[in-house]
Amino acid sequence: MANDKKLVEAITSMDEDFAQWYTDVVKKADLVEYSSVRGCMIIRPYGYAIWEHIQKYLDTRFKETGHENVYMPMFIPESLLQKEKEHVEGFAPEVAWVTYGGSEKLTERLCVRPTSETLFCDHYANIIHSYRDLPKLYNQWCSVVRWEKTTRPFLRTLEFLWQEGHTAHASAEEAQEETIRMLNVYADFCEQVLAIPVVKGQKTDKEKFAGAKATYTIESLMHDGKALQSGTSHNFGDGFAKAFNIQYTDKNNQLQYVHQTSWGMTTRLIGAVIMVHGDDSGLVLPPAIAPTQLVIIPVSAHKEGVLEKANEIKQRLSKVARVIMDDSDKMPGWKFSEYEMKGVPVRLEIGPKDIEKNQAVLVRRDTREKIFISLDELESKVTQLLSDVQSGLLEQARLLRNKKTYIAKSFEEFEKTAAETPGFIKAMWCGDRACEDAIKEKTSATARCLPFEQEQLSDKCVCCGKPAKHMVYWGKAY
Amino acid sequence: MANDKKLVEAITSMDEDFAQWYTDVVKKADLVEYSSVRGCMIIRPYGYAIWEHIQKYLDTRFKETGHENVYMPMFIPESLLQKEKEHVEGFAPEVAWVTYGGSEKLTERLCVRPTSETLFCDHYANIIHSYRDLPKLYNQWCSVVRWEKTTRPFLRTLEFLWQEGHTAHASAEEAQEETIRMLNVYADFCEQVLAIPVVKGQKTDKEKFAGAKATYTIESLMHDGKALQSGTSHNFGDGFAKAFNIQYTDKNNQLQYVHQTSWGMTTRLIGAVIMVHGDDSGLVLPPAIAPTQLVIIPVSAHKEGVLEKANEIKQRLSKVARVIMDDSDKMPGWKFSEYEMKGVPVRLEIGPKDIEKNQAVLVRRDTREKIFISLDELESKVTQLLSDVQSGLLEQARLLRNKKTYIAKSFEEFEKTAAETPGFIKAMWCGDRACEDAIKEKTSATARCLPFEQEQLSDKCVCCGKPAKHMVYWGKAY
Repeated sequence: MANDKKLVEAITSMDEDFAQWYTDVVKKADLVEYSSVRGCMIIRPYGYAIWEHIQKYLDTRFKETGHENVYMPMFIPESLLQKEKEHVEGFAPEVAWVTYGGSEKLTERLCVRPTSETLFCDHYANIIHSYRDLPKLYNQWCSVVRWEKTTRPFLRTLEFLWQEGHTAHASAEEAQEETIRMLNVYADFCEQVLAIPVVKGQKTDKEKFAGAKATYTIESLMHDGKALQSGTSHNFGDGFAKAFNIQYTDKNNQLQYVHQTSWGMTTRLIGAVIMVHGDDSGLVLPPAIAPTQLVIIPVSAHKEGVLEKANEIKQRLSKVARVIMDDSDKMPGWKFSEYEMKGVPVRLEIGPKDIEKNQAVLVRRDTREKIFISLDELESKVTQLLSDVQSGLLEQARLLRNKKTYIAKSFEEFEKTAAETPGFIKAMWCGDRACEDAIKEKTSATARCLPFEQEQLSDKCVCCGKPAKHMVYWGKAY
Repeated sequence: MANDKKLVEAITSMDEDFAQWYTDVVKKADLVEYSSVRGCMIIRPYGYAIWEHIQKYLDTRFKETGHENVYMPMFIPESLLQKEKEHVEGFAPEVAWVTYGGSEKLTERLCVRPTSETLFCDHYANIIHSYRDLPKLYNQWCSVVRWEKTTRPFLRTLEFLWQEGHTAHASAEEAQEETIRMLNVYADFCEQVLAIPVVKGQKTDKEKFAGAKATYTIESLMHDGKALQSGTSHNFGDGFAKAFNIQYTDKNNQLQYVHQTSWGMTTRLIGAVIMVHGDDSGLVLPPAIAPTQLVIIPVSAHKEGVLEKANEIKQRLSKVARVIMDDSDKMPGWKFSEYEMKGVPVRLEIGPKDIEKNQAVLVRRDTREKIFISLDELESKVTQLLSDVQSGLLEQARLLRNKKTYIAKSFEEFEKTAAETPGFIKAMWCGDRACEDAIKEKTSATARCLPFEQEQLSDKCVCCGKPAKHMVYWGKAY
């Protein structure tokens, strides 16, 4: 058990230093390795397998809702990036510029895409002519680059992987419907697959996407009480259409501008999974995205019949779950903590005494509950347990989120809550940018969103005392 | 039928101008659109869906052979690229350089990866310590950039999508086994999935990958008699390991260098599919990668019962194939040529007379054969026909390849064949670079490969007459 202890001790505890705990987990669970390129990470096999599961779920949902995948160039000519004024102001300060191709200096600089609105608009202007060409429902899986000053694996990196949906519609109503449809797809995905509860709402003008008419967001709460923007969906109205001249002939033979949306989710979701479900023993993965859902650990594996039985169990369970068996010569205790670190949802122990009793021991990663099951019921019990872990994680995360959601009716309450008990703060707002700025300056909290589910906590703005227009979720954010 | 004719006429015929035919097909089958970025293409939904099928097959085969996916940064610092001398000489002239991040000039230039050997080596040096860490069998799906002067969709573009496998092994033997194993995976994939026969062999020193000890290739032959390098697998020996200091401790506690391989396939495969199977009516897709395997076209769709029956057929066939139904108000003849252009393997026509007879008409895209089938046997006949089309395409491509494979025993024969009947030329070679250069200069043909299946055509080099060492496949190439 010496090795076991040593491994566990090697992680900083969450309460002691959350940032260090996070760094320890991403490294020790083999999710990420640092690279020679500042701010860029290497996503290792275990981390990438999680991303592959995320991709598979999301891609299926995009296709079910009628979207098609395409691939756009990774470069954007400077002149193209500049076509929409707000957009270029938002992104130009943080893009990487290619200035040479081989030994030849380029006549026009190319930026490495930070996002692809301009490329999609340029393409749409070429391929959309008639109402028959609408809607266009495109999505792209790729990597993008934003020249960030400070970076952290998954949460903020110079390059990250994501999907970006870009759609064009005949009417403003359709575009708005699409924007909300995809926000709901994101919210359902977070809750059902990642077991992360989210608050759905609209961003303030200050926080919305550069060039958007309206930005909608799903916000989740991490273990340390900080908020994480987990997905956004933008309604562009006809702003980009006018800048890029994307027009179609309607049924009455009149020229009309299209209405557009875009929406994206990124590898930062893996950061959310770590910070919502993880604990002092490491990662805790929801079974839906766990590369390994169950690990079999033979106990006293040298004894007759143990390995055979473990193998037989592996064969049987492979039909209902993603299973591995660790029959290496390491001590069982070392293995226990190794797979706890990696967040494998369920561990199955099988030893000579279990075989005698025709049983196996299941141990939940999330609650550490030990369950003895009859081998006759192996498949059904494991299937049920994985489902229980999945729903249990969501329930646990919801409890934590609710516990850390506060109400502030005065600015004093707001300041005290922000300083002493990190979490979401629900408070009323007059709608003025000045108050939003003042709150950020004095408390570091930003407006996370105007939630769809509004409550009338008071009739005054928490900052200036003038009549309140909205209830806002505030919080310090990643 | 007026529209029908017009559509068909819009494509240049293959024999008249093969290059223009190719361009017409990629555009009119909606595979690709040109972008605002020189040399970069937009892969449209229909083209990208083909790539998704290619990815799915290959990824499954990689995982079956024990490989794991990872993701490396898209940037390579200049100093890292320079670590292996031959490698940097091969790639530096054709990379895109990032020199600015936002408004800040970088202290070290970053190139956009043209390939990721250097990044993988840098990573391997960090994570490989002991023989227990070997082998490392990694693969990456991503896009890469090479600053080409002239470009053509799929065949040669500044940016293209690919996979790159990178592995590290304890011994030279294991690395060689892996190199050949993956070449065989590629060859099987081309033949079984893409229905493209390939010649497997080794590249000459002149044609091998920058930094490799040996490069193996699969070469296929296009309809116009030009060769296309369709996949390569490289054995690096311990060259990169020495340059990057990738060492491990063996079982005897001795430090050893690892032996490495890399192997890649790209979106250029879609170009191969077009040029091997296509005809003057457009694209012809092997069912295995066809986004739509069968299109149902109701004839006299306004007549009672036709649409209902067509829908019923769609429901039934959706269980055994990827099926769409086109019930738009376009003329059947227009639809026929539209789906021929898109290469849909099988068309099903159903009209009032067919319904009366409880039958449907199947039309093969490749041979245009019409087959009447009883609706009682719908699923089994369609399944069988798709399988027949798949094997028929391979057979047809093999016949064409064999027909266009020539033998040259003298330089005169070689020159005449290269000038008059484009194709593979099998001829003996002494092994000297001088002869390889002379053949290229005089005939434009390059050494495609030293095939694994050697034949003794003569005992003299076709160029210099000195004793021959190898039989070589020569050809003009894309």
